Amino acid sequence: MFTFSLVLALAIPNCLGIWPIPRSLDSGNQILKLSESFAITVGFTNPPQDLLDAVSRTKDSIKTDQLARLVVGRGSTDSNAFRTAESLPGLTVKLEEGASTQPIATEAVAALGLRDESYSLSVSLNGSAELVANTTLGLLRGLSTFEQLWYTYNGTIYTTYAPLTIVNDSPAYPYRGFMLDTARNFFTVSDIKRTLDTMYLVKINVLHWHMTDAQSWPIQIPEFPELAQAGAYSISQSYAPDDIQDVVMYAAERGIDVLVEIDTPGHTSIVGASHPDYVACYLLDWATYASEPPAGQLRLADPAVANFTAGVLSAIAKTLPSTMFSTGGDELNTACYTDDEPTQMILNNTGRTIFEALDDFTATTHGALHDLGKTTVVWEEMVLDYNTTTLRNDTIVMVWVSSEDAAAVVQQGYRIVHAPSNYFYLDCGAGEWISNDPTGNSWCDPFKTWQESYTFDPLENITSDQVHLVLGGEQLLWTEQSGPQNLDSIVWPRAAVSSEIFWTGATLPDGFDRVGNLSEALPRLHDVRYRMVQRGINAINLQPEWCALRPQACDE
Amino acid sequence: MFTFSLVLALAIPNCLGIWPIPRSLDSGNQILKLSESFAITVGFTNPPQDLLDAVSRTKDSIKTDQLARLVVGRGSTDSNAFRTAESLPGLTVKLEEGASTQPIATEAVAALGLRDESYSLSVSLNGSAELVANTTLGLLRGLSTFEQLWYTYNGTIYTTYAPLTIVNDSPAYPYRGFMLDTARNFFTVSDIKRTLDTMYLVKINVLHWHMTDAQSWPIQIPEFPELAQAGAYSISQSYAPDDIQDVVMYAAERGIDVLVEIDTPGHTSIVGASHPDYVACYLLDWATYASEPPAGQLRLADPAVANFTAGVLSAIAKTLPSTMFSTGGDELNTACYTDDEPTQMILNNTGRTIFEALDDFTATTHGALHDLGKTTVVWEEMVLDYNTTTLRNDTIVMVWVSSEDAAAVVQQGYRIVHAPSNYFYLDCGAGEWISNDPTGNSWCDPFKTWQESYTFDPLENITSDQVHLVLGGEQLLWTEQSGPQNLDSIVWPRAAVSSEIFWTGATLPDGFDRVGNLSEALPRLHDVRYRMVQRGINAINLQPEWCALRPQACDE
Repeated sequence: MFTFSLVLALAIPNCLGIWPIPRSLDSGNQILKLSESFAITVGFTNPPQDLLDAVSRTKDSIKTDQLARLVVGRGSTDSNAFRTAESLPGLTVKLEEGASTQPIATEAVAALGLRDESYSLSVSLNGSAELVANTTLGLLRGLSTFEQLWYTYNGTIYTTYAPLTIVNDSPAYPYRGFMLDTARNFFTVSDIKRTLDTMYLVKINVLHWHMTDAQSWPIQIPEFPELAQAGAYSISQSYAPDDIQDVVMYAAERGIDVLVEIDTPGHTSIVGASHPDYVACYLLDWATYASEPPAGQLRLADPAVANFTAGVLSAIAKTLPSTMFSTGGDELNTACYTDDEPTQMILNNTGRTIFEALDDFTATTHGALHDLGKTTVVWEEMVLDYNTTTLRNDTIVMVWVSSEDAAAVVQQGYRIVHAPSNYFYLDCGAGEWISNDPTGNSWCDPFKTWQESYTFDPLENITSDQVHLVLGGEQLLWTEQSGPQNLDSIVWPRAAVSSEIFWTGATLPDGFDRVGNLSEALPRLHDVRYRMVQRGINAINLQPEWCALRPQACDE
Repeated sequence: MFTFSLVLALAIPNCLGIWPIPRSLDSGNQILKLSESFAITVGFTNPPQDLLDAVSRTKDSIKTDQLARLVVGRGSTDSNAFRTAESLPGLTVKLEEGASTQPIATEAVAALGLRDESYSLSVSLNGSAELVANTTLGLLRGLSTFEQLWYTYNGTIYTTYAPLTIVNDSPAYPYRGFMLDTARNFFTVSDIKRTLDTMYLVKINVLHWHMTDAQSWPIQIPEFPELAQAGAYSISQSYAPDDIQDVVMYAAERGIDVLVEIDTPGHTSIVGASHPDYVACYLLDWATYASEPPAGQLRLADPAVANFTAGVLSAIAKTLPSTMFSTGGDELNTACYTDDEPTQMILNNTGRTIFEALDDFTATTHGALHDLGKTTVVWEEMVLDYNTTTLRNDTIVMVWVSSEDAAAVVQQGYRIVHAPSNYFYLDCGAGEWISNDPTGNSWCDPFKTWQESYTFDPLENITSDQVHLVLGGEQLLWTEQSGPQNLDSIVWPRAAVSSEIFWTGATLPDGFDRVGNLSEALPRLHDVRYRMVQRGINAINLQPEWCALRPQACDE
């Protein structure tokens, strides 16, 4: 028995606490205490306020996390070394010579290709530490790494990973997202901010905010007040313009870009509550005309509807700093248009098919967004099913139906974001929510475990000359069966999985394959999950605590 | 469209708010306001303090629930009637002539057959209301019904169900439980109390507390302090004797009996942390010797171990008021004993098989509990697989492997509690937690939806002369992948389903079959779920709010 335990102890990786794991990492296993007067010094002039704020949050988190190390005894054996261990008096934060000192919030919303998130971090055994980057955004990434080094036992804050050197850690992919649907059920600004805090911790850098859907329209738009008045569940369940700016700024200061999606022309039934003339098959039998209740799609063939939609999208988009904006475009129900008299009349009069009309609709809505300097984002059907010909080459396409569809989209030369339902949908496995079906499972059953998600390979069936088209990926929460009550527990720690896939890439710092290395990953995922809990996030247990304290003992 | 909505409105049942629905119910659809000076008067002398406390809690809840009615507009149309509606100045709470005035806490822990939970409640349109019962426990049940009548719009508290008459509502089955496993992951006393509050709301009357398991021993027993010292995840993650008394009394005052289970002789690996000599195959390969890690089972053939176990069980049982105590008895791994030298030596020396030894072990442990006046409770394998011959006739058997096993247990004359994994396990569907299996599903996949659970028939394959052996049932949370973080959301509102199955029985108050009536049940389940949320419980959304506001609109 004792031999068995000893073997396990030796096999414990040396970097349990860091998620996502840096691409380069050299770490020891010595104990270094945090000095009680520990300070973080910004070593350059005119640092932007949001960097100073981030530094201040890091310092606070290190002191308030109070995470006991995940070993039997929770650190009691570490304490033997406290008397002789060195103390770390401070961390110096620096920019490379001549680097710009733009705010984090500015760097975070730059176009994907223009962001520099790289950083280097060293913590020496004799008690000095330095974080260096080319940008304030890179420094922020380094701070989130630094925060994860620290444990607390009996009041002493310490790391067991000293000395530690990370040279030029930087993400394998520029887009590492999380999608939240705020339309099926409503989430408060506070719910979203809490989620952004945790996204920061694991270096997720895009909040894909699926704002509206068939069931509700929770955003107040000054130019179109009727949409929220008739379409929000209530005014208190809607986002005022100030709320949206608050979320966007809070995100940007944490290195997170907010990609807003207004899903069109499908998933728009609720527009009928204020504009019934603009919506086909409004509240008709959903089983015939929609993938879920309620039915209703924008009458896309009508130029008045296209102009209205372009106006709505522009009214929101112009208030947002992101270079990206999503117009959705998934799950169009063609029967709805076939049976809609006004639509058929227009199509007949103009001699177009419904998909030709969609092309015109898209030209109008995307044109308005391009005029605002936005890069448009769409779901995969726009490319694979509707043969939309007016999409600009720089359109970003989200692949959701199946991971197997990625290659076909890339083949057409579009950039993609991986959002595959068969790996990354966080809501799968909770059963059928259509109420009178006692035996139904969720359409994307089963539940996507962290293990299943972790095995996702972003480059499967992608040729080497197409690799540059893969921007990254995101895990997604559709909220038919979710709300603020289970937000934390259904999202965390699972949504951190894609952050490691797209930050660390295919190779661990020791040169071994990351993919498939579940036994190495799990202790680190436990660690960051327990840290989330210390921060008040209701992240779920992945295993009995017995297993969390004994790496590999609960492997098969 | 408008015609469609009107049809829906007429089809809305008249008693949306009550869960479980009373067995007799006559209700109107008039609005009655709660007077601002509303009072609850106890109309008999010497009421026990715990009834007064319950009355006080009910009065508070009615004022603090502030639940807006689940209709489009959330009650705005009700407010038109507020000016002319009558006000209810008070509720009178009475016992029947000559009834005993024992405390609720005493009635709640009586033997199952001796509890009287019946009550009658009337609320008249002219503003009077009366609750009558034979026992304080019955009054408590009536209070939980009364609490569910009230909504709030713009500061006015009101019901839409007046006049209302419930005559002699009483449960179809005496055992309506919920099981919580506090061993795989730890729950605080506060987590348990929060759960008890919600159990009270839906008339669940047994907390089956699965205290210990292979992974941890979170209970401090003064006579055996070493068990928690070595076996709790930490001392702060264990229950002191006072904690247990606190939970038991809190439960009893809310009409809930606490059935403690110490699972033996399997699921006891953690006993090896303090008593390695008492545990076979301790920490050996779990895939061979246990259904999940870690391996280890009590050396049941050893009389010293049987006596030790009887001592441990008695030490806990003697502190508990319940008439029931569970010794577990599930999932014995026979290979563990076959390969265990000390066990084989004893079996050879005494000329017994392992199951004959189990019989002796059970005689010892159950005997000790019977001496304390306890009725023993076991899992189904003790009857169906191990052919235990020493079980007393009054043993209560929990059927968990499959609902199909119920008939075979009843056939042997034992009383049963339905706890079928295929209907009532709340943890199913969250994937395999053994860490290095990327494609594994949970063993009891899929997720048990409320609809699936609701279709459970307690009398399937039970003959009429066996009906008296069916005590009721419970939904269960095994916590390998759960903890305080998702307790509310994985349990509620789903665990309320069995409370209606076993309170209301097979027939709705209007005479229609309850089973299969999902469309009628869902609006009421939404209602009680939204009420739970108002009480600070993180009960999950069952559907988009759009559906919750529009009964039947999201049926197929």
